[in-house]
Amino acid sequence: MRARDLAEEYPLVQLTDDALSAARLIAEQRRPGVVVVDADNHPVTVLPGSQVLRFIVPGYVQEDPSLARVYDERGGAEACVGKLAGRTVREVLPPKDKRYELPLVSGDATVMECAAMMARLHSPLLLVADGDTIHGVLTASHLLDVILKTNPGPSE
Amino acid sequence: MRARDLAEEYPLVQLTDDALSAARLIAEQRRPGVVVVDADNHPVTVLPGSQVLRFIVPGYVQEDPSLARVYDERGGAEACVGKLAGRTVREVLPPKDKRYELPLVSGDATVMECAAMMARLHSPLLLVADGDTIHGVLTASHLLDVILKTNPGPSE
Repeated sequence: MRARDLAEEYPLVQLTDDALSAARLIAEQRRPGVVVVDADNHPVTVLPGSQVLRFIVPGYVQEDPSLARVYDERGGAEACVGKLAGRTVREVLPPKDKRYELPLVSGDATVMECAAMMARLHSPLLLVADGDTIHGVLTASHLLDVILKTNPGPSE
Repeated sequence: MRARDLAEEYPLVQLTDDALSAARLIAEQRRPGVVVVDADNHPVTVLPGSQVLRFIVPGYVQEDPSLARVYDERGGAEACVGKLAGRTVREVLPPKDKRYELPLVSGDATVMECAAMMARLHSPLLLVADGDTIHGVLTASHLLDVILKTNPGPSE
């Protein structure tokens, strides 16, 4: 079994896409994040939901979450969503040197290669791609499932 | 709306539980991880699926994933699962100083407080608990969903 056979579909967004739509995609599909690709469909990074929160929650509230109580629910949501309006995905990403290293494997990678890569980078997610052909993503739980089904180990 | 109203059920394991069963829980339910509690039901940390992989994939393969090709599929799975057999959850956790800081909010926390905490810690997950009463977990995508539904922002 190779990475391309295991890869699951994952939402892609472009750097120039609307940031609010990307946030909605994460929210509505309850995804941990979205894969960001450039104009040539080459993967750039992953935009995690927590990064979107980092972008929209006012800085002084992040420093001291107890200050969040100055907002009522509607006011808080308004302050957050206002920061996304008219922004592109590129603007919401962290600066390049702080971006999440994109863990990438080729479609040919074996289960053990994928597991090793994920373990080394401590990443919950791998992107499976060859150039601009994106096969999908692989999660740690999916890989564990494959490994445990190949060798279920001693029963209780 | 408070954190306890939003918290969703999440699998809990004890420090002394069998590590292989915990891995199976992550694998079968396709969870990013499990919450680890002590004998008094106080949350200790989160055990992510990627940490389980880190524990079971041989160290030299993590250093150089191309070495993973020395294993065939069955042999690789056997080497991995063998490392879990007879181990407890405690043994699979990283050393204390390298553990994932457990992002914890009380059941009373507002949506903005939760978002601020998640943003600050760059965590995809929050544990909602008061002492030994664990209400559940909150994901970044769930919080985004609540924020966007409170204020959907401009339509396209």
